[in-house]
Amino acid sequence: MQAALELFRKDGYEATTMRAVAEAAGVSLGNAYYYFAQKDELLAAFYHEVHAAHVAAALPRLQTARGVRARLQAVLDAKLEVIEPYHHFSALMFRAAADPKNPLNPFHPASSDLRREGEALFETALRGPRIRIPKDIAAELPGLLWTYSMGILLYWIHDDSPGHARTRTLTAHTVDVVTQCIALASNPFLRPLRRRVLAMLRDLQPGRAVGTP
Amino acid sequence: MQAALELFRKDGYEATTMRAVAEAAGVSLGNAYYYFAQKDELLAAFYHEVHAAHVAAALPRLQTARGVRARLQAVLDAKLEVIEPYHHFSALMFRAAADPKNPLNPFHPASSDLRREGEALFETALRGPRIRIPKDIAAELPGLLWTYSMGILLYWIHDDSPGHARTRTLTAHTVDVVTQCIALASNPFLRPLRRRVLAMLRDLQPGRAVGTP
Repeated sequence: MQAALELFRKDGYEATTMRAVAEAAGVSLGNAYYYFAQKDELLAAFYHEVHAAHVAAALPRLQTARGVRARLQAVLDAKLEVIEPYHHFSALMFRAAADPKNPLNPFHPASSDLRREGEALFETALRGPRIRIPKDIAAELPGLLWTYSMGILLYWIHDDSPGHARTRTLTAHTVDVVTQCIALASNPFLRPLRRRVLAMLRDLQPGRAVGTP
Repeated sequence: MQAALELFRKDGYEATTMRAVAEAAGVSLGNAYYYFAQKDELLAAFYHEVHAAHVAAALPRLQTARGVRARLQAVLDAKLEVIEPYHHFSALMFRAAADPKNPLNPFHPASSDLRREGEALFETALRGPRIRIPKDIAAELPGLLWTYSMGILLYWIHDDSPGHARTRTLTAHTVDVVTQCIALASNPFLRPLRRRVLAMLRDLQPGRAVGTP
């Protein structure tokens, strides 16, 4: 997988053959095909490895973080820490995200396992001693927060500031804004807006027939 | 330009030569180079043409549309109407947007003219007989709405629903949500949230040195 990532970056994804990957990794072509039937599986394995590392980095932080703000920040900090060494593969990651037909695009049905696992981590983040989330929002919030984290990732991919400081600024600010929005959501004053947003999410559910509301 | 777009789509951007474009357009290579010094200029010309058509389609609608909601809807409807014939070029459009180094990426400094013109259209949309926008937000709002319209465009590029009905559903819903947010922004109850968002925008301004707040 490491050999493949390097070759994808150096020669481009299309130009890299499984033979070249096997050679760079010092294994036979048959051996390479035994583990990865096609190139896309190498990238898929990478995404799964990054996700496992993210969970491993986030859970200890969540043991001590209290409150929505600190717990969201913990999950996002863990993600940025885990992906930092891969910033020079950004273009490669974006390539998948950019193509709606690519099964590695995080919104593609074939990526639903990884998406669900990502949402589960946000579900964990939203569970805590003094945390109260209104029920109708609780069902939607993990999915929304996961989508939000994809937005942070997209920003990081494009971020050429030293040490990706801009992404950390964006994260700290948006975690604050998101936390305030969650706290405000249960206020009766904002009920019309909240109903509007929930109606939008319902109407845009994948697989739902659509019409202009 | 039309010939180039067809070739980019059929053979891919990299594989298409200026010679092939000139041949397909029935002009000499020298003639093609006279108008377009490089391939990227053909795409840039396309974006400028689409923008001019957008303004031409939006202004008559803005003559009759009253209120923030109707006027935002008018600008976005005009955009979707103008770009509809180009949906089969989506991948091509996304290619530019996807690459942070590409000057045709709408957030690239080289695209700032087009971005400013897009923002100016939203400024016009926000001017109307009974429309009151708080001053601090008025400065940021056209830029935010333009970024929002890029989000709608990104959704449209990925939208494979019949007649892109999903994009129209998303647009109607989000115009409603955005309109409510603008109306709520001046409420004293939401002042802390509004200050937070304005601070974030200030800290993330292009060219500004960043640090974690």
